[in-house]
Amino acid sequence: MAAANEPSPGRLASVYSEVQTSRLHHALQLPTVLCSQFSLVDGPPSSATGNPDEIANLFPNLFGQPSTALVPAREAVEGKPLKVGVVLSGGQAPGGHNVICGIFDFLQDRAKGSTMYGFKGGPAGVMKCKYVELSTDFFLSLQKPGFFYFQQGGFDMICSGRDKIETQEQFKQAEDTANKLELDGLVVIGGDDSNTNACLIAEYFRSRNLKTRVIGCPKTIDGDLKCKEVPTSFGFDTACKIYSEMIGNVMTDARSSGKYYHFVRLMGRAASHITLECALQTHPNIALIGEEVAAKKQTLKNVTDYITDVICKRAELGYNYGVILIPEGLIDFIPEVQKLIVELNEILAHDTVDEAGVWKNKLEPESKKLFEFLPPAIQEQLLLERDPHGNVQVAKIETEKMLIAMVETELEKRKAEGKYKDNFIGQSHFFGYEGRCGLPTNFNASYCDALGYGAGALLQSGKTGLISSVGNLAAPVAEWTVGGTALTSLMDVERRHGKFKPVIKKAMVELDGAPFKKFASLRDEWAMKNRYISPGPIQFIGSGADAVNHTLLLELGVQA
Amino acid sequence: MAAANEPSPGRLASVYSEVQTSRLHHALQLPTVLCSQFSLVDGPPSSATGNPDEIANLFPNLFGQPSTALVPAREAVEGKPLKVGVVLSGGQAPGGHNVICGIFDFLQDRAKGSTMYGFKGGPAGVMKCKYVELSTDFFLSLQKPGFFYFQQGGFDMICSGRDKIETQEQFKQAEDTANKLELDGLVVIGGDDSNTNACLIAEYFRSRNLKTRVIGCPKTIDGDLKCKEVPTSFGFDTACKIYSEMIGNVMTDARSSGKYYHFVRLMGRAASHITLECALQTHPNIALIGEEVAAKKQTLKNVTDYITDVICKRAELGYNYGVILIPEGLIDFIPEVQKLIVELNEILAHDTVDEAGVWKNKLEPESKKLFEFLPPAIQEQLLLERDPHGNVQVAKIETEKMLIAMVETELEKRKAEGKYKDNFIGQSHFFGYEGRCGLPTNFNASYCDALGYGAGALLQSGKTGLISSVGNLAAPVAEWTVGGTALTSLMDVERRHGKFKPVIKKAMVELDGAPFKKFASLRDEWAMKNRYISPGPIQFIGSGADAVNHTLLLELGVQA
Repeated sequence: MAAANEPSPGRLASVYSEVQTSRLHHALQLPTVLCSQFSLVDGPPSSATGNPDEIANLFPNLFGQPSTALVPAREAVEGKPLKVGVVLSGGQAPGGHNVICGIFDFLQDRAKGSTMYGFKGGPAGVMKCKYVELSTDFFLSLQKPGFFYFQQGGFDMICSGRDKIETQEQFKQAEDTANKLELDGLVVIGGDDSNTNACLIAEYFRSRNLKTRVIGCPKTIDGDLKCKEVPTSFGFDTACKIYSEMIGNVMTDARSSGKYYHFVRLMGRAASHITLECALQTHPNIALIGEEVAAKKQTLKNVTDYITDVICKRAELGYNYGVILIPEGLIDFIPEVQKLIVELNEILAHDTVDEAGVWKNKLEPESKKLFEFLPPAIQEQLLLERDPHGNVQVAKIETEKMLIAMVETELEKRKAEGKYKDNFIGQSHFFGYEGRCGLPTNFNASYCDALGYGAGALLQSGKTGLISSVGNLAAPVAEWTVGGTALTSLMDVERRHGKFKPVIKKAMVELDGAPFKKFASLRDEWAMKNRYISPGPIQFIGSGADAVNHTLLLELGVQA
Repeated sequence: MAAANEPSPGRLASVYSEVQTSRLHHALQLPTVLCSQFSLVDGPPSSATGNPDEIANLFPNLFGQPSTALVPAREAVEGKPLKVGVVLSGGQAPGGHNVICGIFDFLQDRAKGSTMYGFKGGPAGVMKCKYVELSTDFFLSLQKPGFFYFQQGGFDMICSGRDKIETQEQFKQAEDTANKLELDGLVVIGGDDSNTNACLIAEYFRSRNLKTRVIGCPKTIDGDLKCKEVPTSFGFDTACKIYSEMIGNVMTDARSSGKYYHFVRLMGRAASHITLECALQTHPNIALIGEEVAAKKQTLKNVTDYITDVICKRAELGYNYGVILIPEGLIDFIPEVQKLIVELNEILAHDTVDEAGVWKNKLEPESKKLFEFLPPAIQEQLLLERDPHGNVQVAKIETEKMLIAMVETELEKRKAEGKYKDNFIGQSHFFGYEGRCGLPTNFNASYCDALGYGAGALLQSGKTGLISSVGNLAAPVAEWTVGGTALTSLMDVERRHGKFKPVIKKAMVELDGAPFKKFASLRDEWAMKNRYISPGPIQFIGSGADAVNHTLLLELGVQA
């Protein structure tokens, strides 16, 4: 984005670090197709990922829309001024500000005289019509600290929220806002749920004959919103590189001190992409992939034994240390744990938990056995930590500490049997908030800029119900493709409370996909030999600065 | 260091990340005085930091040695081949490998034909004569992965250990090793204890008329080994920048989501330099400095109230989030906690802890009150976590979680009184192992290289019982000064078990020092306004890559 009227270096230094300031000045390249005249070419009509009839029923106005691609054109499309709103939805991911800057730049470049609004605090801001005008002054002023967001991490420009626009009343509120601001377009930046929601709003607006078009942008550090046309969600690249920096440092520490097993829990409640990517970047001794645990119907005892076996074999080789990566959603993937939790929720809702433990007899025998296998601290967490509905909060369980305690117990048993002689010390880590708001990597920054610029182009061309799609990502930025994919084509339905609900299915780690297969082919070597790699801090200049993450390259078939 | 016979890029890529590889190729500048001929100029006789008579008694052969400085000279000192051993002592700190490379380079440049030994696993390696010869082949071979250490983090080249050479038998073992390897010199890389130990070995070797000289090098991420001649210990710069990267990310997250208070515990058991430096780099809402808590004789209730007051005032301004930094040694600084722990150790050694809590009546009334003020989980930790001597392990206490629980309780009280209306959610973090083994910053790398090269020069000139000293650190590397400081001059005595024991006193945060004064002058503004700064990942090229930490610059009087 243009950096006219820049504040003085002195003012900047009071608000930004040197690296932050240098990022403000980092010029981004746009894909070539966005650099001169372009037009849109539609593909064939689309269907749905599953249950197309139900999706067609749910989206009568949008179903079947073609995907579209930007191609070079001779003549400029007349760029009338637009009124465009943008909203951030859900958890933070590095690059959100660049998407907004990309939309802004599009409007500045190709729809002069446009007005842009940022809805504050997520979808609630749309419903309550709480917004800020994102003018040139806003972007470039430093009247309030932090008002200068280009290539900065975080969502603090307009903040985000987790509300959904779901009820008829809420749709009506969104309609009122769209009418009041005379919006030509609304860009929803979010994950799978938020993009599903974006499509529902697009459908509603179309059904009400509103001029407001709705375009989604793929955001989530978890990396579980992706498909052929949308090869990755923004934020994943940066977050994984930040976590991998830390993991690499911990690995070097493990090898240097030679006496600790580090259990590192990583974000990713639904899918284990982050753990897999970090494993590919750093080569840990063990990385647990939830999808594999589920597919193999492993028990907690299986997982514990696997870790313990590796520790014992390493001990024989003289290695009394190691690094183990764990996705935070691990225990959700274990069928027996899911069953135990369902039973616990039922029992805790109706009975009191007596000190003597008589209540435990209400559990099914296997569940009772599992419960008693858990370390006391975890038993306590299961009984005490409940959400407002009284349900056990699996997310609150510190899985890495639980595994340390279970491995400890198992090792003591083996010690007594003479099968293990060393001294096990587990160290626990959780890397979560540290990665959601880092400065976006070069790849992440360019990708977001292109997503935003492309979203602007889709809106200008009258498109709605599409997700901004930037492809060919293994090539240099100049060669990236830009277009839009019909959100309905990503959808399937789930049956909830007797009704069909449209959903964009989360993209899970595929056990026959290239990233997992590469990991699976190397993990035995990583377990016994120490193949640690330390990615180091993200660099913005020089060697490695433009590297793309392994998962994406492998999925694109670029990396062997 | 020279990079002849480099392995192929393909081999490197299987062991190192792109950033690691680029660091191998990063050319370091030496201080100008080390680039051509130099000689040593001694200063006046030295004394001791305290109790010079006792120090003179303890070090009859070394007491009073002058410090020495390298100055340019016309003629080259004849460089006979030397046999030099090096040992890493204590916890890891980024840059240790560069000190070793610096010594190696000195021997290659100025004492051709020398032999260098790396003692394995710390001082135990010296006692047991376990070593590896650090030849050109060793440095440049890749026969084992990881055998290429220049500018890499960690101590895994020869590893470290926490043993001390203390008893007469142990001194004799060290003597045997020195004789067996015909050592001209031994370089001890370590913290305050290790350098005290180095001086005792130097004294012993001198008393035994051994030719082996002993030189120390200042290492510790905690930053508490420093004096006028040794302005900083290596590792502090890198570790603080790694922690600050994470803190900056968490701050952006806090501001973006607007609903969490992040309590971040940082390394620094004895002194709070890391917390102070990270605060100067990132501007948190609160940073607790142990030395201040001790000086003001604050209670845990005082600390809790201070945090709670800030939270309540911020709530009135509409800020229901924040970031709070806590040194891991905090509770050691609180007099009433120290007293409680002494009493607990006494009681737990002799009595059993009854469920009903009758045992608590054995505590002094204030200690009992304090114990009951503590959150139940912390009470449990105090009773259960004991070291092999049966003592309470203060280090195991998760201070950040303890403070979250205490602040929660206090806020509930204020809520009941109508003085607080918001919803407090604390998130806990501990940044420790993540920072000890990162890739050294440019400053850290150059500083270590100069320390090592200088140590070589001191040994060649026949010096012993000195600590390698590199100064004028705010200037460009070319202008740095190089020399050695008498270790006895840094010493005082402590009386233990009726005997005087020499110690290099840990350098604590000085409340009238420039770093603390700058922090104290700004913290009220940081508390109420959000002046967060995100330092971002350490850069090795470009803007900010050569920046020096705030503490050092302020202590050198360079930064206002």
